[in-house]
Amino acid sequence: MRAMVITTGEEILKGEVVDSHAAWISEQLCELGVEVVRHLSVGDNLSALKEVFSRVAGRCDVAVVTGGLGPTEDDLTTRAAAESAGVPLVEDPVASASVAAYFEGRKAPVPASNLKQARLPKGAACIPNPVGTAPAFSLELSGTRFWFLPGVPREMRFLMTESVTPAISGMQPKGSRLVKTAITTFGLPESVVGERISGIEAGFPGVHVGYRASFPVIEVKIWAFAGADAGLAQRQEAASAEALKRLDGYVVSEAGLSMPEAVAASLKGAGKTLAVAESCTGGLIGNLLTDVPGSSDWFFLSAVTYANSAKEKVLGVSGHTLETWGAVSAETVAEMAEGARRVSGADIGVATSGIAGPSGGTDEKPVGTVWIGVATEAGTETHRFVSPFKDRHMNKRVFAFKALDLVRRTLK
Amino acid sequence: MRAMVITTGEEILKGEVVDSHAAWISEQLCELGVEVVRHLSVGDNLSALKEVFSRVAGRCDVAVVTGGLGPTEDDLTTRAAAESAGVPLVEDPVASASVAAYFEGRKAPVPASNLKQARLPKGAACIPNPVGTAPAFSLELSGTRFWFLPGVPREMRFLMTESVTPAISGMQPKGSRLVKTAITTFGLPESVVGERISGIEAGFPGVHVGYRASFPVIEVKIWAFAGADAGLAQRQEAASAEALKRLDGYVVSEAGLSMPEAVAASLKGAGKTLAVAESCTGGLIGNLLTDVPGSSDWFFLSAVTYANSAKEKVLGVSGHTLETWGAVSAETVAEMAEGARRVSGADIGVATSGIAGPSGGTDEKPVGTVWIGVATEAGTETHRFVSPFKDRHMNKRVFAFKALDLVRRTLK
Repeated sequence: MRAMVITTGEEILKGEVVDSHAAWISEQLCELGVEVVRHLSVGDNLSALKEVFSRVAGRCDVAVVTGGLGPTEDDLTTRAAAESAGVPLVEDPVASASVAAYFEGRKAPVPASNLKQARLPKGAACIPNPVGTAPAFSLELSGTRFWFLPGVPREMRFLMTESVTPAISGMQPKGSRLVKTAITTFGLPESVVGERISGIEAGFPGVHVGYRASFPVIEVKIWAFAGADAGLAQRQEAASAEALKRLDGYVVSEAGLSMPEAVAASLKGAGKTLAVAESCTGGLIGNLLTDVPGSSDWFFLSAVTYANSAKEKVLGVSGHTLETWGAVSAETVAEMAEGARRVSGADIGVATSGIAGPSGGTDEKPVGTVWIGVATEAGTETHRFVSPFKDRHMNKRVFAFKALDLVRRTLK
Repeated sequence: MRAMVITTGEEILKGEVVDSHAAWISEQLCELGVEVVRHLSVGDNLSALKEVFSRVAGRCDVAVVTGGLGPTEDDLTTRAAAESAGVPLVEDPVASASVAAYFEGRKAPVPASNLKQARLPKGAACIPNPVGTAPAFSLELSGTRFWFLPGVPREMRFLMTESVTPAISGMQPKGSRLVKTAITTFGLPESVVGERISGIEAGFPGVHVGYRASFPVIEVKIWAFAGADAGLAQRQEAASAEALKRLDGYVVSEAGLSMPEAVAASLKGAGKTLAVAESCTGGLIGNLLTDVPGSSDWFFLSAVTYANSAKEKVLGVSGHTLETWGAVSAETVAEMAEGARRVSGADIGVATSGIAGPSGGTDEKPVGTVWIGVATEAGTETHRFVSPFKDRHMNKRVFAFKALDLVRRTLK
């Protein structure tokens, strides 16, 4: 099956927001085995919307459209859909009930403007929206099945997951079932991950391979639609095992966990707690770890000691060490990691000190240099790493992920 | 002038990356007074590329295309452009020199595969690329001026800024000059910002208004192409003054600074230094502040004291306070802010403690509640704020920006 994704809204065309809907929807479609052949973005303009719908209709099997279902005059998608189909807008009983139920849940009368949202193109199949005011709907145009979803991220994702994905899945051969492995990798550039994985699709017929890059981590997805073909689930399993073998040494998670989630799982599995001392990463490690719900169970402290005096006072790093070896040194990160562990009472202390850039580098310690220390009851290890980047944000991320990866490896 | 933006690559259609190029390019075009009417994304497929180019050609004044100029067989954009124009690919002397100069700068021979990049559609105007291997080029198709840029973000942005933007600017009426004000706002929802600013475009003819939402901050851009019209620059200035008046109380910067940059500027202006104590924000405040180059001049410490024991040991918060009032209280954040200031020797201490969610809320302290303390030599103030969000990431950001905003206001 072939699909096109259409996002609407002036804010997209003006570059006021980055269109993340198209990527998210495409990823869902891809995992259903649907080939996405175009993304199109168009403004809140009746003739432009109709032009795009007519270009797409008949040229693919399914189309997913987001935005323009709201109650205001600017929201023209429903009208454009009706005019494209050559049908009138009529009050839809399911849509009316959806709008009424939404406001009833909030103990509020239905505003007059929202009544517009209950009018859908004649012949459209309404998809009730329990999480917002705009009912979604589905309509066939020239043989292409269109789904029209609201642009509000939470509503769009909910309706896509609850209604559109199952419906498209139902259009696939009977009994097909998605089997999927998500491998999180860290430490290899994207091109090398691609090279290592190349040939797997060819070697295991019916198995698909995809990527999701979220710097500096690359997720490799290996999936198949098993069911009809009894051997396919086995081939997907064999392909995943082959991929894991080829990526050996760089696999953070075989279950699609993010790096902080993988560290959290390792800590919880080992019954250990963590404290961090950050210099160049500036709080990013703490921020990543505390993005994981429940992190207070195993995360005690991050001491972001940017000033040398803070390294001394908060972490007990000796002035002599700082003076002799400098802040970016094995000696300093060792004392920082030990200090974080000692001050917090955590089982593991990890520390970073480096030069994120853009300035501050020297011949001896160029921009991109970081020292990382890991202190446990078994002793303290230090690692030096030099990234190829000169960009401050990229280096902060690489340094933080490198430190988290060392914690994960320590717990293995 | 009307424009379309075309991004190419299978990774976009599969949702493996979010297409941020289209937004960035559109923003640049918008500021040139160009109306962007479509975004299109298409895969690395010769017939699909040609189909898209032919659809776009003749339907707008300019088109910007990114991606597919690399040295490999998958890179088909140049060939598709040539076939769309009905011209052969020929070795371009400017492109050859660009490729040769790039490798000469790296003291390396030109790989055979990169010679392909010197072949451009006959009649194309080459744009040398000093920051990468792929020369860009410009070509007219059915009256539409196309620019073809590499997909590598750094190269694309460099060539867009250095070559494409000036060229499009040159297509505008003579003597036009962009005058622009960027107002960073915090504390008002996007819809309210829009309401407050509505009518400004109508009230000041020739003045444009745009937005850029970067949660939880909204940037309002007010610009005009002055030069030909002597009064226009004055109207732009008056419109900016009017917008500032309407947004009074919520303006972080009149010069487009981000919140951390505005805090940095305020600190430097006042000759003050800062220390942070974070609980619920988990390091995000430190991370935001250390994204600003040179932050070591005024940022001393962030103590991310997630565990209560860390609040006591690192910041000196009394066990009695924690027991009596709880970690999320005015009393605790006051002692945290004072502790951060005392331990680090910074002039200002700011502290956060709250409930980011998704769980951990109570009737008394629901998810979204945060206490923020600010300690200076003049004393310690505490503020309670309840966000409407239940999402952990959103709340962490709102809490962190709220704390930074309080620091900024303290320095006023």
